[in-house]
This record gives sequence, structure tokens and C-alpha cells, in this order.
Amino acid sequence: MARTFNARVTVTLKNGVLDPQGKAIEGALASLGFDGVGQVRQGKVFDIDLEATSSKAARARLEDMCEKLLANTVIEDYSVEVS
Amino acid sequence: MARTFNARVTVTLKNGVLDPQGKAIEGALASLGFDGVGQVRQGKVFDIDLEATSSKAARARLEDMCEKLLANTVIEDYSVEVS
Repeated sequence: MARTFNARVTVTLKNGVLDPQGKAIEGALASLGFDGVGQVRQGKVFDIDLEATSSKAARARLEDMCEKLLANTVIEDYSVEVS
Repeated sequence: MARTFNARVTVTLKNGVLDPQGKAIEGALASLGFDGVGQVRQGKVFDIDLEATSSKAARARLEDMCEKLLANTVIEDYSVEVS
């Protein structure tokens, strides 16, 4: 029996990949007076409702989606949480 | 003594706010042959290194950053994890 899973996929830049958006946020936080802020890295999050027969099947499909569409695996890592 | 905390701030659209980017991803996943995909919502994640005297102080500062810069609280919700 298929049921609906709520999944969260998080896609972040790999270490060493330049993140100009993160750098801009670091600068903006400093301008606003927030001190003690080190590195800031920005990533993406996808909340996906998915029908699947099991949590394991849902996870496998989500990883496939990451490989094919959601992440650029040359420069990005992804993680999948299914609940 | 200040120490460095690694925090993750997740910013997501509030329910009811239109998410054209999420809709585009739904369409793209369907075109790629992924069936059983319901709603997709896209959000942002910020990984922030922060010096603070305690986890509680770090969290308070991060919430302040969300209110002032990282989230548009009219249309977005945020959550903060400190480790």
C-alpha cells in the first residue's frame, strides 16, 4: 500500500566551491553589527510530498531525483530526510 | 569563554504563499518520469559559523539575524539549529 511521505532534501555546496552569495551575506551581517560571524554558506532546501510503498523506496527515489535534477553533483552535496 | 558554533538556519515559504519555483520543479520531476510526487516547496538554508558564549546566546543572535536579514518574515518562516 502506497502512502505519502514528507521529505526534506538539502543541497549544499561542496567544501572548496566558491560561494559569492554566502560571502555577500557575511558582509551584510557585519554591516548590520553582527560580530563573531565566521563563514556563511548558502544552500537550498526542497520539501517534497511523495507517494511510495516504504520509507526506503521513498529515499531511493529522492536520491535519484537529486542525481537527475535537484543537485549538481559536480559542485553540490545533498542529504535526504524522510518522515 | 566564547566558542564557535556551527548553525543551520532554514528559511521556508509560509503555507499559502505561492511558490512558482517549487511548481516548476514539480513539472520537471513529472517530465523526468517521477510519478507520485505531490507538492514541492523550495526554501533556503544558511550554514553559519558563529562565535558565542553559549548555545543559547548563539541561537538568540541567529534569530535576530533572521528577523533583520535572512528571512522575509511577512512570507517566510525560519528555524534555527545550533550544534
